[in-house]
Amino acid sequence: MAAAAAAAANGAGGGGGVPRPTNPMVTPLLTDLYQFTMAYAYWKAGKHLDRAVFDLYFRKNPFGGEFTIFGGLEECIRFIANFKLTDTEITFLRSAMPTCEDGFFEYLSSIDCSDVEVYAIPEGSVVFPKVPLMIIEGPVAVIQLLETPFLSLVNYASLVTTNAARHRLVAGKSKNLLEFGLRRAQGPDGGISASRYCYMGGFDATSNVAAGRLFGIPIRGTHSHAFVSSFMGLDDIIDRTLASSDGSNKCEDFVSLVQNWLARIKDAGSLRGTFRETNLSELAAFTSYALAFPNSFLALVDTYDVMRSGVPNFCAVALALNDMGYKAAGIRLDSGDLAYLSVETRKFFRAIEEEFGFIGFGKMNITASNDLNEETIDALNKQGHEVDAFGIGTYLVTCYAQAALGCVFKLVEINKQPRIKLSEDVTKVSIPCKKRCYRLFGKEGYPLVDIMTGEDEPAPKVGERLLCRHPFNESKRAYVVPQHVEELLKCYWPGTTSEPREELPSINEIRSRCMGYLDRMRPDHMRRLNPTPYKVSVSAKLYDFIHFLWLNEAPVGELQ
Amino acid sequence: MAAAAAAAANGAGGGGGVPRPTNPMVTPLLTDLYQFTMAYAYWKAGKHLDRAVFDLYFRKNPFGGEFTIFGGLEECIRFIANFKLTDTEITFLRSAMPTCEDGFFEYLSSIDCSDVEVYAIPEGSVVFPKVPLMIIEGPVAVIQLLETPFLSLVNYASLVTTNAARHRLVAGKSKNLLEFGLRRAQGPDGGISASRYCYMGGFDATSNVAAGRLFGIPIRGTHSHAFVSSFMGLDDIIDRTLASSDGSNKCEDFVSLVQNWLARIKDAGSLRGTFRETNLSELAAFTSYALAFPNSFLALVDTYDVMRSGVPNFCAVALALNDMGYKAAGIRLDSGDLAYLSVETRKFFRAIEEEFGFIGFGKMNITASNDLNEETIDALNKQGHEVDAFGIGTYLVTCYAQAALGCVFKLVEINKQPRIKLSEDVTKVSIPCKKRCYRLFGKEGYPLVDIMTGEDEPAPKVGERLLCRHPFNESKRAYVVPQHVEELLKCYWPGTTSEPREELPSINEIRSRCMGYLDRMRPDHMRRLNPTPYKVSVSAKLYDFIHFLWLNEAPVGELQ
Repeated sequence: MAAAAAAAANGAGGGGGVPRPTNPMVTPLLTDLYQFTMAYAYWKAGKHLDRAVFDLYFRKNPFGGEFTIFGGLEECIRFIANFKLTDTEITFLRSAMPTCEDGFFEYLSSIDCSDVEVYAIPEGSVVFPKVPLMIIEGPVAVIQLLETPFLSLVNYASLVTTNAARHRLVAGKSKNLLEFGLRRAQGPDGGISASRYCYMGGFDATSNVAAGRLFGIPIRGTHSHAFVSSFMGLDDIIDRTLASSDGSNKCEDFVSLVQNWLARIKDAGSLRGTFRETNLSELAAFTSYALAFPNSFLALVDTYDVMRSGVPNFCAVALALNDMGYKAAGIRLDSGDLAYLSVETRKFFRAIEEEFGFIGFGKMNITASNDLNEETIDALNKQGHEVDAFGIGTYLVTCYAQAALGCVFKLVEINKQPRIKLSEDVTKVSIPCKKRCYRLFGKEGYPLVDIMTGEDEPAPKVGERLLCRHPFNESKRAYVVPQHVEELLKCYWPGTTSEPREELPSINEIRSRCMGYLDRMRPDHMRRLNPTPYKVSVSAKLYDFIHFLWLNEAPVGELQ
Repeated sequence: MAAAAAAAANGAGGGGGVPRPTNPMVTPLLTDLYQFTMAYAYWKAGKHLDRAVFDLYFRKNPFGGEFTIFGGLEECIRFIANFKLTDTEITFLRSAMPTCEDGFFEYLSSIDCSDVEVYAIPEGSVVFPKVPLMIIEGPVAVIQLLETPFLSLVNYASLVTTNAARHRLVAGKSKNLLEFGLRRAQGPDGGISASRYCYMGGFDATSNVAAGRLFGIPIRGTHSHAFVSSFMGLDDIIDRTLASSDGSNKCEDFVSLVQNWLARIKDAGSLRGTFRETNLSELAAFTSYALAFPNSFLALVDTYDVMRSGVPNFCAVALALNDMGYKAAGIRLDSGDLAYLSVETRKFFRAIEEEFGFIGFGKMNITASNDLNEETIDALNKQGHEVDAFGIGTYLVTCYAQAALGCVFKLVEINKQPRIKLSEDVTKVSIPCKKRCYRLFGKEGYPLVDIMTGEDEPAPKVGERLLCRHPFNESKRAYVVPQHVEELLKCYWPGTTSEPREELPSINEIRSRCMGYLDRMRPDHMRRLNPTPYKVSVSAKLYDFIHFLWLNEAPVGELQ
């Protein structure tokens, strides 16, 4: 059902059966103007068909970590599969570039991505700095037009997937992780993308209905504080009947049943004195919600006072529901000391289990929310807590700890001539040539090092010793005897070549792959504190070539 | 032209002539699931038509500042004007909430926002914590459905507008500010919204073509490093002819003209020895770009070496263009020490002016980019620089210094009964009641204080002494004699009332209004370092009422 709805919502596209980009605003105009002015200058110089190769890569892992998850590939492929400027878009460009010749706009009208090749690391892979996530080859004018949309589609997707994966790592596999960020995301698409990529990075569900529909992601939600405070008291509840779960009987006054249970809890031996009068508008709200959703009653318990009102009120309703054959789902805490409150709530639940012989009540689900992030979850872990599920919003979706990933798009070859971008900052020097990239695995099954080679070099072989060099640091090099070799980039858009095109997997396949990749990494690369950098290298031949080109291009300084 | 294109691109919508939301993904499903589950619980309890009033406000100004600019209102109004769940959306909701009764989905199909009222502060206004930016009144189930989309549309819009305004304040009015953030924005809509709201907050132009088309914002762009390195040398230039600006003559070999000028510059008295051989692929790229855009030649000069290659190459091309009657536009620096390089470049330009009697060359435009933000511009100002225009991307559009604004949406009244949300954190206690809000101005024309009153209290009067109280701090209060009073919220969506509906102004009107408001603020509220908080208050009557309700609702503690 979910997958069918997702397919229906997206609609079929034009190019080779690949649907259009999820966001209809992703069109060829979603780019920087300079891509069009350069296209004109290339066209004027007769260079627009020059065959160019660009690498899309980032220079530094985000969040102080040593890994990144690659996201956004499917949207890039959808974009190029459907790349075509419409007449109204051309009209706008004419007005924006009034001095350009007509022939140029005719050329623009004619272009698509049929002669573009895209090689990429599979979406959801663990990736590292400097290794191209995507290699894009084609006519230079066309490829430039792809730069900004590709970066826009990859940068945030990869950043937020990585952030989600980091939250999963700190929370542990047993916890439920819920993404609640739509209201604080950077715009509606920020919210929808966040839901998609957080799921890919290991979250279990989202609150975002539109994302649920578009991508088939599980959606979750119960009620807010406003729901609780919208009730004045128990008199607000008009229809008080509840049929039992199996339909065999009917409770005519569920409100009284709840009130009876509340009185029993208050008098129960070990609970006596833990609370006095609970808030009755809260009790009315919980009861109402339970009447609407008897099968999935989950209560937000912190509108008034968690331990003196919210939790006892919840338990009364849960016990009344139990009488009618329903199992309550649990509570949510959205403020206060989450470690302390979750522990106290757990004690209360266990006391209910013991007092009333209600097996399993002690294990009732506790969800926590309220400005959670990696640090706060880590702190909760250290303090000890009883939270089963985390609802995470702002810090997750806006990537508050680092709001941007700096992917770049660099020319590495034109008309088979290698190009290098120099910089006084060595980390900004680009690695020239169309390349091949491999991941080498060691004896224990962990990835050891990524290596880039020239396009025509032989692939690394299992069991054969290979020299891996740091691309810029002469002294850093190591011999590796790989036990397993994986070529990293696959062909996702073959252009006019005859290479088979990789299929775009479903979001659930990408998510499983991502979880699998994370599991395969050596733990010291993944830890939060002082993680070990994963090694990225070049072949000896590529190393020599980089440094030959570099010396060739760099001006000789003159001290004065 | 731009306005017409913008109107055409948006398309007319349904509700009262108000167009649909700019992003087609903004639909009633772009909300949290709990809004729908609560709607069902309200419906089940027969409470869904209860008349509720919600305030949308934030609690703290962003970026360590003491002001915020309100953005996103137009999109909220577009959203409600066109609010209607489609049959396919209802089908999806049925699948997501399988236990809900049919009657509920019939109700959902029937709802629109015709009985909703929206009062708001005009978009582009300077606003402060706790004062509602919007007051939304209507059937509680409907208003809840608006919560998440409104927050999603307002939070980022206001945040990035404020960020843009802060960049404008630090850069000063004389500088050109260009938004270059699309590639690093949080998703495509993040990019498009950023371009729109940065313009609103005081930027002059964007690189984002789609935003230019959608909103009629000026667009700017020239070329990238890849353009420069795509040239191998001067032989790449096939067509070397250039007609003069007035069409009176033609240069058959513009490349030679450039080369001649380069030789003359190298030999010019005061410039002799400042550079040796410049990079010829760079010279070829500049010459090509000038042949394509002789009227607007702007060169990125840092691909190889700014002072020894980029700037001399630019000057040679600019002088050659001048021979043909064209005026070059300037240079862009995208790396290195921008203060130093801009000063050195300016000296070089002045030397050209003197050596060749080229009046005005010394004032040639210098644009700087490369990870700029408020801090780096402030540092440049302190060091002294010669930059005329700043191109700002990542830090601006992702609001890197604070990636989210925490607007909330709180129930303040239901069926005419005031509601308060308590919290152990006083800053999180909500201010109950449907309110009116005023800005009071002092003798010097500056705003002095914002005051909230109950709906039925008389408006503050010019010349009449009024007690303004801090809403939560008993001891903070002050008498004010306003010289001018402005009611802050106006009616943007009258629902079934007969109030006239405020028009939605054009983006340029909002931008001018925003600049005007910023100019009217007392400078100490606006400064970067230790700004003075602007005062936000309540009337004596509202103060008393808040505290009466608070004591009524809060449980009495018990120390054990």
